[in-house]
Amino acid sequence: MAKKMNAFYAQSGGVTAVINASACGVIETARKNKDKIGKVYAGRNGIIGALTEDLIDTSKESARAIAALRHTPSGAFGSCRYKLKGLEENKAEYERLIEVFKAHNIGYFFYNGGGDSQDTAHKVSQLGREMGYPMTCVGVPKTVDNDLPITDNCPGFGSVAKYVAVSIREAAFDVASMAKTSTKIFVLEVMGRHAGWIAAAGGLAAEEKGDAPHIILFPEIVFDEQAFMAKVQNAVKNYGYCAIVVSEGVRNAEGVFLAEAGSRDAFGHAQLGGVAPVIAQLVKSKLGHKYHWAVADYLQRAARHIASKTDVNQAYAVGKAAVELALKGNNAVMPTIVRTSNKPYRWKIGSTKLAKVANVEKMMPRNFISKDGFGITKRCRSYLQPLIKGEDYPPYKNGLPQYVTLKNVSVAKKLNTEFELNV
Amino acid sequence: MAKKMNAFYAQSGGVTAVINASACGVIETARKNKDKIGKVYAGRNGIIGALTEDLIDTSKESARAIAALRHTPSGAFGSCRYKLKGLEENKAEYERLIEVFKAHNIGYFFYNGGGDSQDTAHKVSQLGREMGYPMTCVGVPKTVDNDLPITDNCPGFGSVAKYVAVSIREAAFDVASMAKTSTKIFVLEVMGRHAGWIAAAGGLAAEEKGDAPHIILFPEIVFDEQAFMAKVQNAVKNYGYCAIVVSEGVRNAEGVFLAEAGSRDAFGHAQLGGVAPVIAQLVKSKLGHKYHWAVADYLQRAARHIASKTDVNQAYAVGKAAVELALKGNNAVMPTIVRTSNKPYRWKIGSTKLAKVANVEKMMPRNFISKDGFGITKRCRSYLQPLIKGEDYPPYKNGLPQYVTLKNVSVAKKLNTEFELNV
Repeated sequence: MAKKMNAFYAQSGGVTAVINASACGVIETARKNKDKIGKVYAGRNGIIGALTEDLIDTSKESARAIAALRHTPSGAFGSCRYKLKGLEENKAEYERLIEVFKAHNIGYFFYNGGGDSQDTAHKVSQLGREMGYPMTCVGVPKTVDNDLPITDNCPGFGSVAKYVAVSIREAAFDVASMAKTSTKIFVLEVMGRHAGWIAAAGGLAAEEKGDAPHIILFPEIVFDEQAFMAKVQNAVKNYGYCAIVVSEGVRNAEGVFLAEAGSRDAFGHAQLGGVAPVIAQLVKSKLGHKYHWAVADYLQRAARHIASKTDVNQAYAVGKAAVELALKGNNAVMPTIVRTSNKPYRWKIGSTKLAKVANVEKMMPRNFISKDGFGITKRCRSYLQPLIKGEDYPPYKNGLPQYVTLKNVSVAKKLNTEFELNV
Repeated sequence: MAKKMNAFYAQSGGVTAVINASACGVIETARKNKDKIGKVYAGRNGIIGALTEDLIDTSKESARAIAALRHTPSGAFGSCRYKLKGLEENKAEYERLIEVFKAHNIGYFFYNGGGDSQDTAHKVSQLGREMGYPMTCVGVPKTVDNDLPITDNCPGFGSVAKYVAVSIREAAFDVASMAKTSTKIFVLEVMGRHAGWIAAAGGLAAEEKGDAPHIILFPEIVFDEQAFMAKVQNAVKNYGYCAIVVSEGVRNAEGVFLAEAGSRDAFGHAQLGGVAPVIAQLVKSKLGHKYHWAVADYLQRAARHIASKTDVNQAYAVGKAAVELALKGNNAVMPTIVRTSNKPYRWKIGSTKLAKVANVEKMMPRNFISKDGFGITKRCRSYLQPLIKGEDYPPYKNGLPQYVTLKNVSVAKKLNTEFELNV
């Protein structure tokens, strides 16, 4: 490349506790290679920022602010749920991206997201070449759902996993103390509509026989009310209480989400609560036990205060590796996490072709779920355990974590043409 | 006292992240005074353990296990929600307590709980004297609700306060990144059925203009839908999103809990969710914004992993002080936390008569809530801020906090008589 090209970085889809650590890895590594790479422009609100020529000049941020991204949850530049259609369906979007990139002398495209985003990065790479504007496109893996293929795990997942395991352990300690005369059933609802990775992570808290959670309800396993009730009763009988982790994606035999199969309001709308209150109420109505329930929702994926150190390190490493791969001339690739040893846990960064990642969903293997369908196996524990290892506390001031909010200075527009989003 | 007397310690009511730190303070201080005090017996499942002569011999626990109580949430000996009636209504219960204490040579009664428990401790002191078995009764303050009078604050509250402030800050960072195309409204439901102390603590996260939470809904303020919607719309307009902390105890103009005034299922039962989904759905139906909501429930009061160091220190200190007060011959008293300076924050241990504490509820002053009823005042912030200060992380192993489970060895019964509980 004769001319030093700029880079574009965008965050995509649901954010995580550590996606900014990847941004930090990308930006710090680019800054270390100023001889080869120009400025890093970030998309304001993700890919939408590229489509609307709404770019953020990250060079306006201090080294200190960029470093603070490593311990700041959420997406510092904004993210979006905006899936580009297929090349045939809406080629205009891809052409627009290339047009904007060209206008801003962008030669590197770093896209930080899940399967859809890796697909987009792949297509941009194809189309750029086709349009005579070859770009170096590198995906940066991210998803709390842990559903990307090839990479051993996904940055973002380990911290949710740790949050869920810590939370169910703590709440269960609480319930155990109260169970004699009060709450006997505790239900924690966690994310994971299609795969049970996050619910499974709750199982890490159960290290000894009798430890909570006593039951995990997976989206992979059809809800069997009778077997479930027997299991609840068994836990109450043996341990005095029952702690349950339930995935939001649990379905009944008809394939309907339990959260939606529950009661309806006076207007026939599905009731407002999630699946946790449905499960709790079911236990109450059948077995009569007093219950409490919690819905962690965004708290779980934003909980940077209890992030996994392994996860933070890996998130940073894939951001760094993305830039290094690009500078070495790799195109249409994604850095991966490769587990080289399980005990002691060791990992390194590898890479794979985007074509292999795009739109492939990694499901949880059936042998990660116990035979009765209510717990995790040793194999699962062995896989998950290293991912929650280590703490990486953010700095605190006045008792609160100090997260950075960037200045997010806009790059002057060069095209100034409107582009209509498909929203 | 001619004979060295044993001590009885019990945990009462809802447990907290730091009530075991108070237990640690009581037991370690008693152990340091073995010349004056015998064994510490704990009530299994609180006062029920005394009534049923189900005592735990804490002398069977190692120094290390007792020390670990300082960083273990929940009630290590079990707690209960069992309120003794008035002396006139059920004198038999008090007589039974004295009978059990006498049988086990117990001369000290340490009762770790809220207003009801202080009342019980007070009555035991009165009745013991009346029955010719004078005991030294000392209350140990505890309640996440922060509603005990005289003491500046209650151990247990600071850690919930920190959890809520940290959680709403983190979730709001998440929502802010997604708001452009996705979730614009986030609602976090917190505890506090009668007083808004916990909800108010969420306000600590809002340090700069525009910071979340943008709205707090207090049980002290009648829900005004119109004013609320205007406030939501204003936040969305100015900041792109709106983060809300809602107390479970918010009521409408008719005095009905919003959580119960919501939709009903096909059988006419109040819907299962809490108030968070009601608020979220209301905003959706009126303003059309996409929402997410979380219900923290027990997670907030069990979250030892993010406990306030101030809170842990104070919880330990009141346990220690309770024993010291008893050994100095004080009876029917409770150690208190006295704020001696606000900036820098300094506190010391004081004490008060149980008669002054029993059954008095400390409400949140109206001047702690902003004029519009949706936020906290500077005065409130100044009071709350020191209480969440400092972190006091538990030790971790395999990525999980290491909380202790005691052996809880039973003391051999001496009475062996049945006692029927009022449950």
